[in-house]
Amino acid sequence: VTAAAVALPAGFRSHVANIGIKDDTPDFVIVATERAVPTAAVFTRSRFAGPSVTLSRTQVADGLASAVVVISKNANVATGPQGHEDAIEVVRATAERLGCDASEVVIASTGVIGRLYPMDRVRAGIAALPDRLSSTDAVGPATGMMTTDTVPKLAEATVAGSTARVVGMAKGVGMIEPDMATHISLLFTDAEVAAADLDATFRRVVDRTFNCVSVDTDTSTSDTSVVMASGTAGPVDPDAFERALYEVAVDLSKQIARDGEGAHSLIEVHVDRAADGAQAKRVAKAIVNSPLVKTAVHGGDPNWGRVAMAIGKCSDDTDIDQDAVVIRFGDTEVYPRLLDDDALAALSSYMAGPDVRIHVSLATGDADASVWGCDLSDTYVRFNADYTT
Amino acid sequence: VTAAAVALPAGFRSHVANIGIKDDTPDFVIVATERAVPTAAVFTRSRFAGPSVTLSRTQVADGLASAVVVISKNANVATGPQGHEDAIEVVRATAERLGCDASEVVIASTGVIGRLYPMDRVRAGIAALPDRLSSTDAVGPATGMMTTDTVPKLAEATVAGSTARVVGMAKGVGMIEPDMATHISLLFTDAEVAAADLDATFRRVVDRTFNCVSVDTDTSTSDTSVVMASGTAGPVDPDAFERALYEVAVDLSKQIARDGEGAHSLIEVHVDRAADGAQAKRVAKAIVNSPLVKTAVHGGDPNWGRVAMAIGKCSDDTDIDQDAVVIRFGDTEVYPRLLDDDALAALSSYMAGPDVRIHVSLATGDADASVWGCDLSDTYVRFNADYTT
Repeated sequence: VTAAAVALPAGFRSHVANIGIKDDTPDFVIVATERAVPTAAVFTRSRFAGPSVTLSRTQVADGLASAVVVISKNANVATGPQGHEDAIEVVRATAERLGCDASEVVIASTGVIGRLYPMDRVRAGIAALPDRLSSTDAVGPATGMMTTDTVPKLAEATVAGSTARVVGMAKGVGMIEPDMATHISLLFTDAEVAAADLDATFRRVVDRTFNCVSVDTDTSTSDTSVVMASGTAGPVDPDAFERALYEVAVDLSKQIARDGEGAHSLIEVHVDRAADGAQAKRVAKAIVNSPLVKTAVHGGDPNWGRVAMAIGKCSDDTDIDQDAVVIRFGDTEVYPRLLDDDALAALSSYMAGPDVRIHVSLATGDADASVWGCDLSDTYVRFNADYTT
Repeated sequence: VTAAAVALPAGFRSHVANIGIKDDTPDFVIVATERAVPTAAVFTRSRFAGPSVTLSRTQVADGLASAVVVISKNANVATGPQGHEDAIEVVRATAERLGCDASEVVIASTGVIGRLYPMDRVRAGIAALPDRLSSTDAVGPATGMMTTDTVPKLAEATVAGSTARVVGMAKGVGMIEPDMATHISLLFTDAEVAAADLDATFRRVVDRTFNCVSVDTDTSTSDTSVVMASGTAGPVDPDAFERALYEVAVDLSKQIARDGEGAHSLIEVHVDRAADGAQAKRVAKAIVNSPLVKTAVHGGDPNWGRVAMAIGKCSDDTDIDQDAVVIRFGDTEVYPRLLDDDALAALSSYMAGPDVRIHVSLATGDADASVWGCDLSDTYVRFNADYTT
C-alpha cells in the first residue's frame, strides 16, 4: 500500500488536527458516518485500562456507532475520576458537534500514562470541528494516531465478488502484547454486514492477527480495535468479507511488528504439528517473546539452542518430546539434524535480513499458528530508558 | 562475604580444574563427602532439559549422594543419545575415581546448548583427579562454575544454637527465570538433617528465594539446585536450620539478580496486601519482568505508569481495583497520590542507584512476596547479540 493513495471506504469521512496535546504534530482524529452503523470492537483486558476503554466498551455494546475519536500523545490512563469525566466530556461534545447521539461515539487514547488531558485545548479542538466532515483521506487519520511510530500503518483489501473495500489503520510500536485486543486499530468497510455477524467475524480475525503480535510482552492499558461497516456497497459474501478483513488485519499486524521500537527485522514464528491451536500459539509466543532469541536475531546469529530453550519453557506441555521436535530457520532444518559450522555460519546473512522465519514442528498433532514479533536492539533499550512513555 | 575467606562446612572437600572445555579458565568442579549423605535437589521443568538434569533427578531420588560434579562452558543440552551416554560416563568414571557408587554422584552442566562434551578432555580430567580430595576451599568451586558471571557468588550463615554452618555458591547471569528450580546452585552444611526433612525444607526455601529471581524471563535448560548435609556438626534446631538455609539462598538470589547480564541495579519488587502468596508473586513477577519497567530503571526514570501497566497485565486478577492500588518507589508513594514534577524528578537519583525497591500494595488481602531482578541495558542486548550462549 502506498500511503499517499488510500481513501476511506464509501460512507466514511475523516477529520485530523493538531490540538496541542503534547507538541505540534497531529493528535486529534475523527472518522465518522452519516448515521449509526454496525460496529464491533475488542479491548485490552488490563486491570489498569483507562476511561477511554471502559467508556467505549459500553458505547459499542449495542453494536452500533457513528464515529470514532482518537486522541494521541496522552493515554488518559490512571487519571482517577477526573480522567473519566474528561473522557465523557470529549464524547458528549464531539457527538453534539457531529449531530449524533452521545452513545454513538467511540473513543480511544494512546500516549503517556498518568497525565490528565489538557481539557482547555481539547474543548477548543472539538469546537473547531467543521459543520460537516468532507475528507475521505485515510492517511491523515493513520498519521494522527501515531506516537513513536516511524511510519503510518495502512492496509486495504477488496471483498471478492463485490465492490466493497476494507481499509484499516493502526498505531503501536511498544508496550505490545495484545490479549483479547490490541494497540489501536481502526478498520472501515462499506460492505453491508449485520452487527452480530460483524462482531463474530471480527473476533475470529483479531484472534489470528492482532492477538498474534508481540513487540515486548508488555500489554497496553489502552488497546482498542474497532471495525465499522457503512453498508454503502451492499451485501457481500460472508467468507469473502472475512478473508478481506483478515488480509487487512494481518498486513497491519506485520507492519506493527516490523515497526517495533528499535527493530531491524520482522520475526515470523510458525508452529505446526501441534496438539491444538492454543499449544501452537503458546509455543510460538514463547519463542517470539524470548529476549535471548530476539537478541540472537538482532546479532544475525542462527542460535537454534535458544529456540530449543524457549520451547522448553512451555513446561506444562508434557506431550512435547525434545527428540521429536524439528526446528528450521527459513526452510533450513537446524535441529535435530545439526548443520556443520560452515553451513550454520552461512545462515547468518538470512538471520540478519529484514524477514526472519522460525518454523517449529512439535509432532504432537496437526494444529498450527503464526505469530509476529521483532528483534530486540540496543536502540529499544536506549529509547525506553531515555524517553518517558 | 569476602570471597577469599570462605571454607566449605566440615565433611566436604573440593576439586577444581581446567580440563579445556572451551578455554583455559576453570571448568570442572567436584565437591564430595567421605560417604553418602542426605541430599535434596530441584531441577528445571524445561521440556528441553539436558541429560545432566534427567540423570541427576534419578540420582537424588533416594535422598542420598556423596559428590556433585559441575562442568561449565558446555550445557550438554539438545545433544541426543550421545549426550546422555556422555553424562552417564562422566558420573561412572568420577564415582570410580572417588571410590563411591555411581548412583551417589550428582551432575550439573552449564554453558552453550547443542554441542557434545569434548569427551577425550573430560576423560583426561577425571583421570587426573587426586586419590584423595584435600581442599576445603569454597571460592575455587564457585569460580569454576562461572560462565559469563562477572563475580563468584558465595554466601554463608551459621545455624543458631549450634556450630553448624551453611555455605552456598551459585552461577547464573542470563536465561534466568527459575521455575521449580534455578540456574546452578550448590549448598553445603555440616548440620545433621534427615534426607526427608532436608528435601521439604529446601523446597520451601527455594520457592521463596531462587524461584523469585528473574533476569530475563528465559528459563534455563540446565537449572539445578542441590543441598548436601554432611552431619559432622550434629543435630540442629529445624527452624534455625531453615533460617540459615534461607539466609544463604536469599543472599545468593540477590547476587544473581545484581550480576544479571549488563545490569547496573538490583531491583527488588515487594507486593503486599495481596489475596494470596501466588497473586503477590504473579504481580511482582509481572513488574520485575516488564522490559518497559526494566528500561525505565536503567534510565533512572521514576515512571510509575509502567508499573501500573505491568500490574494491569495480570488480567485474570479481577479483584485488583486500580483505584485501591498503592505504588511506591522506595518509601515514597507515587500513585494514587501523585507527586508534582519536581518531587518526581527528585526520585531520579534513587531510581538510578544500585538498589531500587518497588513496593506495591494491592488491597486484595494480607499476603505478600518479594522477587528480585535487574535493569535492562543496551549492554545486555549487545552481549547477547554478539555472543553465542
